[in-house]
Amino acid sequence: MSNEEHFTKQKLWGGRFTGETDPLMHAYNQSLSYDKRMYAADVHGSKAYARALARIGVLTNEEADKIHSGLDAVKNEWETNTFKIHPQDEDIHTANERRLTEIIGSVAGKLHTGRSRNDQVVTDVRLWLLEQTALVEGYLKELIGVISNRADKEIDVLMPGYTHLQPAQPIRWSHWLCSHAFSFANDLERLRDLIPRLNKSPLGCGALAGHPFSIDRETLASDLGFKGVIENSMNGVADRDFIVEWLMWATLTLTHMSRFAEDLIIYSTSEFGFVTASDAYSTGSSIMPQKKNPDSLELLRGKSGRIFGQMTGFLMSLKGLPSTYNKDLQEDKEPLFDCVDSMKASLQIATGVISTLNIHPENMKKSLGMDMLATDLADYLVRKGVPFRETHHISGRCVAFAESKKIQLSEITLEQLQEIDSRFTEDVMKVWDFEASVDRRNAIGGTARSAVERQVKVLQSLL
Amino acid sequence: MSNEEHFTKQKLWGGRFTGETDPLMHAYNQSLSYDKRMYAADVHGSKAYARALARIGVLTNEEADKIHSGLDAVKNEWETNTFKIHPQDEDIHTANERRLTEIIGSVAGKLHTGRSRNDQVVTDVRLWLLEQTALVEGYLKELIGVISNRADKEIDVLMPGYTHLQPAQPIRWSHWLCSHAFSFANDLERLRDLIPRLNKSPLGCGALAGHPFSIDRETLASDLGFKGVIENSMNGVADRDFIVEWLMWATLTLTHMSRFAEDLIIYSTSEFGFVTASDAYSTGSSIMPQKKNPDSLELLRGKSGRIFGQMTGFLMSLKGLPSTYNKDLQEDKEPLFDCVDSMKASLQIATGVISTLNIHPENMKKSLGMDMLATDLADYLVRKGVPFRETHHISGRCVAFAESKKIQLSEITLEQLQEIDSRFTEDVMKVWDFEASVDRRNAIGGTARSAVERQVKVLQSLL
Amino acid sequence: MSNEEHFTKQKLWGGRFTGETDPLMHAYNQSLSYDKRMYAADVHGSKAYARALARIGVLTNEEADKIHSGLDAVKNEWETNTFKIHPQDEDIHTANERRLTEIIGSVAGKLHTGRSRNDQVVTDVRLWLLEQTALVEGYLKELIGVISNRADKEIDVLMPGYTHLQPAQPIRWSHWLCSHAFSFANDLERLRDLIPRLNKSPLGCGALAGHPFSIDRETLASDLGFKGVIENSMNGVADRDFIVEWLMWATLTLTHMSRFAEDLIIYSTSEFGFVTASDAYSTGSSIMPQKKNPDSLELLRGKSGRIFGQMTGFLMSLKGLPSTYNKDLQEDKEPLFDCVDSMKASLQIATGVISTLNIHPENMKKSLGMDMLATDLADYLVRKGVPFRETHHISGRCVAFAESKKIQLSEITLEQLQEIDSRFTEDVMKVWDFEASVDRRNAIGGTARSAVERQVKVLQSLL
Amino acid sequence: MSNEEHFTKQKLWGGRFTGETDPLMHAYNQSLSYDKRMYAADVHGSKAYARALARIGVLTNEEADKIHSGLDAVKNEWETNTFKIHPQDEDIHTANERRLTEIIGSVAGKLHTGRSRNDQVVTDVRLWLLEQTALVEGYLKELIGVISNRADKEIDVLMPGYTHLQPAQPIRWSHWLCSHAFSFANDLERLRDLIPRLNKSPLGCGALAGHPFSIDRETLASDLGFKGVIENSMNGVADRDFIVEWLMWATLTLTHMSRFAEDLIIYSTSEFGFVTASDAYSTGSSIMPQKKNPDSLELLRGKSGRIFGQMTGFLMSLKGLPSTYNKDLQEDKEPLFDCVDSMKASLQIATGVISTLNIHPENMKKSLGMDMLATDLADYLVRKGVPFRETHHISGRCVAFAESKKIQLSEITLEQLQEIDSRFTEDVMKVWDFEASVDRRNAIGGTARSAVERQVKVLQSLL
Repeated sequence: MSNEEHFTKQKLWGGRFTGETDPLMHAYNQSLSYDKRMYAADVHGSKAYARALARIGVLTNEEADKIHSGLDAVKNEWETNTFKIHPQDEDIHTANERRLTEIIGSVAGKLHTGRSRNDQVVTDVRLWLLEQTALVEGYLKELIGVISNRADKEIDVLMPGYTHLQPAQPIRWSHWLCSHAFSFANDLERLRDLIPRLNKSPLGCGALAGHPFSIDRETLASDLGFKGVIENSMNGVADRDFIVEWLMWATLTLTHMSRFAEDLIIYSTSEFGFVTASDAYSTGSSIMPQKKNPDSLELLRGKSGRIFGQMTGFLMSLKGLPSTYNKDLQEDKEPLFDCVDSMKASLQIATGVISTLNIHPENMKKSLGMDMLATDLADYLVRKGVPFRETHHISGRCVAFAESKKIQLSEITLEQLQEIDSRFTEDVMKVWDFEASVDRRNAIGGTARSAVERQVKVLQSLL
Repeated sequence: MSNEEHFTKQKLWGGRFTGETDPLMHAYNQSLSYDKRMYAADVHGSKAYARALARIGVLTNEEADKIHSGLDAVKNEWETNTFKIHPQDEDIHTANERRLTEIIGSVAGKLHTGRSRNDQVVTDVRLWLLEQTALVEGYLKELIGVISNRADKEIDVLMPGYTHLQPAQPIRWSHWLCSHAFSFANDLERLRDLIPRLNKSPLGCGALAGHPFSIDRETLASDLGFKGVIENSMNGVADRDFIVEWLMWATLTLTHMSRFAEDLIIYSTSEFGFVTASDAYSTGSSIMPQKKNPDSLELLRGKSGRIFGQMTGFLMSLKGLPSTYNKDLQEDKEPLFDCVDSMKASLQIATGVISTLNIHPENMKKSLGMDMLATDLADYLVRKGVPFRETHHISGRCVAFAESKKIQLSEITLEQLQEIDSRFTEDVMKVWDFEASVDRRNAIGGTARSAVERQVKVLQSLL
Repeated sequence: MSNEEHFTKQKLWGGRFTGETDPLMHAYNQSLSYDKRMYAADVHGSKAYARALARIGVLTNEEADKIHSGLDAVKNEWETNTFKIHPQDEDIHTANERRLTEIIGSVAGKLHTGRSRNDQVVTDVRLWLLEQTALVEGYLKELIGVISNRADKEIDVLMPGYTHLQPAQPIRWSHWLCSHAFSFANDLERLRDLIPRLNKSPLGCGALAGHPFSIDRETLASDLGFKGVIENSMNGVADRDFIVEWLMWATLTLTHMSRFAEDLIIYSTSEFGFVTASDAYSTGSSIMPQKKNPDSLELLRGKSGRIFGQMTGFLMSLKGLPSTYNKDLQEDKEPLFDCVDSMKASLQIATGVISTLNIHPENMKKSLGMDMLATDLADYLVRKGVPFRETHHISGRCVAFAESKKIQLSEITLEQLQEIDSRFTEDVMKVWDFEASVDRRNAIGGTARSAVERQVKVLQSLL
Repeated sequence: MSNEEHFTKQKLWGGRFTGETDPLMHAYNQSLSYDKRMYAADVHGSKAYARALARIGVLTNEEADKIHSGLDAVKNEWETNTFKIHPQDEDIHTANERRLTEIIGSVAGKLHTGRSRNDQVVTDVRLWLLEQTALVEGYLKELIGVISNRADKEIDVLMPGYTHLQPAQPIRWSHWLCSHAFSFANDLERLRDLIPRLNKSPLGCGALAGHPFSIDRETLASDLGFKGVIENSMNGVADRDFIVEWLMWATLTLTHMSRFAEDLIIYSTSEFGFVTASDAYSTGSSIMPQKKNPDSLELLRGKSGRIFGQMTGFLMSLKGLPSTYNKDLQEDKEPLFDCVDSMKASLQIATGVISTLNIHPENMKKSLGMDMLATDLADYLVRKGVPFRETHHISGRCVAFAESKKIQLSEITLEQLQEIDSRFTEDVMKVWDFEASVDRRNAIGGTARSAVERQVKVLQSLL
């Protein structure tokens, strides 16, 4: 029996065992069903590794070339969907090596020299995730771009600003948009922050103790496109911080998304009526013909739970593990893969929703009540030298007066105002102007046109 | 165009929309890819519902029969893997209704009378989960059975009992086994406790407000095999407590499993050497030929994170949702399905591991040190009337003495002991007997043979 | 130096150590600052234990009496706030024993015979929690009582029912109230379910291996008020499931609270205007005089996070621990104590909020749109024999027609309706009646007066 | 009644309410019991704000001076523990303003001009946390320093390296130390990464809409020591990302700590016997005189749950909140404060444990088995040109042979080896040298002396 034939009959680590694996155990243990999506990263890693082995003389150049063309053939099979999985293939690494052996013969057996699946798998995941991170960064930038563009175009639209979901002060619709865009901008910054730690090569760490053939890890890392190497081999094979960081990043980003969606869902109610999700992002009811539901926004809000669960679950798997590789770490890939997929979809859906959202400025205006200028009324007296804490009480009395008379705050006559406090003079009537109110807040970060324009500029400079 | 043809071109709720759905939104919104596994429950629910509609005259008996045979045909297609999914099928409910319409024509359109997907989906999930729960209960009982059987057979084996992972007092191996079995027994009790709440029918709750045709929900529930009905329709369509409870149950059960696995992983180290997982549940290394790793135990421990993540993630999705159905609730099925699958596999793997585990009683014995009888030494003086707090200090001085002399506690001579405390007499030497020590603890729950036999009996009475 | 004096200078386990503890380590390690609140349970446990020791002859009756009166004195010091904590007191158990020794002398040293802090602490926590659980059960019943009473009294008030926060179908305000009350009723059932597992005695389990003096654990348990004993000593000292279950219970209950609060916060907005929290449960703004914020509801919603964090955090502490007692378990008490306190406060606040809540039925009515009867319109044709799926499309066309004409659905003339579908006849106009619509849903769980009255009765039967 | 007297009788927002607050609601709503620890940050913030108000003419310089000296007096009261809390003080902001008013009279009422508690509280928390972060960074550096110093000094000590907790390959003790130090080094990097986002000023954001008196936020920020301003006022008052990031940072750091502690707890068992925690960080048992338990390590491991719970709990509180300030955000401080305290203590305890840890090199050596050189044996043949996959199988056969003969791998004679594979020659005997094995791994990150020395250098360069 040739080595190759022998190989295909045995698991990679099969030289010693005599007992049989429980078939259920095989299913419980295998990861190929989901880690096969990293096939390209695995081939990429192996090709660079072959080159590195050739550099230190473990492979001849001819052997390295043979391995390269074999690996290309393997990759091609995956790409053309012709790769045939064998029952004993446990993971993408054993599957690719098994197939490579079939294609190029026993020289394939040299490829694993000094390499362990422990450093191989984490190299693959890092390579795969780096590529995905670039995509995600792009989608996030699109989202911020779309929001800030709307903010730029719809700067004239006024709406109520809420605290505690109670009407507080008038704001610009664009100010609301920017408030969310800045959360996403921070997410962008955080995503960029995690890349340097992700972008380090564990290849050459071996099973745990490092590489016994003096491989040049830095050149190998650079070949693979990494920006550096991990400095301790035990750390290199066991460190999953880059996954935790990504899951944490995604969790916080979707927590922002849940807030964004929550606002829009409330603004979409018929009672608020500020916005309507476009038909492309709404669905109807199987029983109520009049329904049009903002399902997209609810799904965005709901996904924040899914991603959070992946983050917390993986941390739970990590907790209390001893050093180096333990099989528990295999629980890293499914949450990561699903998280990345969910993030890509969610960012795109959010971009779609916001770019096609219909807004109803007249309803926003209708919700602006004169009460929301009560602080402006207090500020009016401040400008006359009255301490704010006192003007706050005076304005509060005006609010109570208007309420007791069931009139708008602006309908209190000057005489009535002066009865409440004699320092009110005729110019107080200028307070009742929402436009003026928002434009008075012209310090950085405020609702004034100039301040919002600055925000848009800052946002767009990040993209 | 016939109604049926029309139907197949439109989503169920499509009577009103004109815009097109974003294709990515379709993918983001659909659930058929995973909820199709509930096809049998969906058909079962619809058949009972048709019968209930016939009972109140909404359907004639002939119509109900036609629907029944159509639904059987639909189910048969799923079972024989011939059901063809259409691109516009959103979920198992619309897919089945669409297909039913194709098979039996427009009478299928009567089936949804007074029913909404809101009550339909949650009926399906409950039916599906009830069936799965019975399977899981069976696997859990097998696990407890296997552990308690080993406890029964290997009652003679002594080992060190640890607290803080430091040697504490001698115990029986069976006592250790039972300690875990009782955790699983509590899990069994908890699983049985949640069934009554799961076993209630929401069918007839409609979209949120109940059923407009006076359907007899109790008979319908009973037809479906439920033990009762949910008493408020808004609660009925939105309540996912039965899923939360299941996820919480699974989380706690796997937390127990993580402790069980942790003990065994430590006992499997070459330093402890108490047990070896059978080859069927071990794997080797791709680089280190001598390795035999207890992967099964590590996976069991790691799964505790996965399940925990599903529980926490779904709770996060639920948090702060308004009443009744919101699309966020669609995030219930994937964690539930994966949780149930993981539990079924994990319980079986654990049963396999424990039933094939090799134990090494000689190594356990080797780890029993005379120090572990220091409490027995203190107890010896208690029997002579010395207050325990004092005997504890005396025994502590004996331990320190032995340590300083680098001898075993049992090697201190009677004279030396008497120098430490004059109340020691010759019979103190009987203390140095591990067997006697464990058998002295014969109160309920202790390590004595009789006490462990009682435990085995209690465990087996639960199965 | 007398034994007592000696005792007060040493930690209980201090017979052997020579090194000094790092003072920061003392603070890190101690639990007295928070576990002292269990002083009464600790004394109660020790008194029963003394009696049990007397029963087996380890104590004379005189000694037991002396210990009893000493323990009463200790308890009295705690109650009168005169207990002086010593720097070396680590926890409530060592503090109480130290003080007991000071009061009654060395006979106190007999009390710990066969007992370990491992079984002592968990006995204390169980006793304490049983008492608290009864209080919490009472508060929960009050909450359900208050909600169901309102439901009974305000059954005439109609409001919109929402799905996806979009107007769906008219409901009774009482129906909404009951929908939440049933969630809390399930919480009540779950709380009662966990008590039997909580209500078991671990006392007599010793450090881990059981009791060496054949103590009668069942009588001891019964003296303490427990309903049974834990059957395995290792399980007894390490099992914290009763805490996990309580934290899980509280988490799910507050998840319900978050939904209840969310609805009310949205209904409190000026755009909805359905309800106003009473002044007793609202606060104002330090800057905006017109504000009145439903802080109580926001805090209730926010607490769901706090409790959830305690549950997840403690599970994380438990994960992967080896068997029996490990010091990690000390992380059980702070989350539990805070959780119990938070639950007691939250249930009472919720009861206060709901019993003083102002409702605005006229605003609820204003939000009822004729669109919400579109399903009733479809049902109208169902009664004429048209398949629901078809009537759903017809009704959808009516909705679209009304929208295009900017009229209410009820304003479509009979002629226009008949143009859409010829099967409409004059009696269709009776559809436009919200009262009739809710009363049509008279199946169990529906919005009809009779159906809601049944719900109130079911709820009240649980209290 | 003077303004001041009036003030002390009313809550800040009390101008309008007539109803009384439920006393339980006061307790539920207040935050002073825990936020008072930010008193210095609150005073610092107010002083800078007074200066900024003076700069724009809202205060005269005299008024600002008066406020400054009043605030200093308030701070002094806190510092000397003489500040008297009034029942109506809700939080540190209202308490300080109330007291300031009492001290300096109504001019104090000008301080809140244009400021809201919404921007004030988040300014305080940021200032407080910045200070704490510097402390924590210091403690973390100390920990890394201590570990790397030990690594430097104890580089000669060999021990088994484990994967799956099974003996894998020999490593240096220093290599193990560095593997953990690099995790902590990454934590240090991450901590530094989050500072720029924390170090931004929200002051001047007002309640939500910005500042109505054109305050110069950048100068104000710079006065406070911030490095920039938050660019959108709604974002400024509601953003708690800096807290989430800190909690996430702490969670990951303590997950590393749990792994570090887990290793050491296992190495502390009597079966491993590699290390012993010093008495200063160990405790004994109340019942077992011989026990010495590594409580410090268990507490470090257990705290990972506590911190994780704070992180997840706060995320849960945030999820689904609408924009801007909602009272739910008040749930930010308790987890943050406890997290910071726990981190400071845990880092110091860890430093103490590791700097006083006793190691037992002879026991480490005893655990080194010749099996652990099986990979070196395979590598030996690789150097002779045999493909690794083949040498792995050959070495596996040697392992099996030794096992069947119950001899050490190194005891197989050359003849026996040659029977297994003819390519073995005499120099194979040089394989059986642990020292040589670790030194062969001299690529970056490996176990060779030179490679470990590099690691120590890299670590120390970060401090």
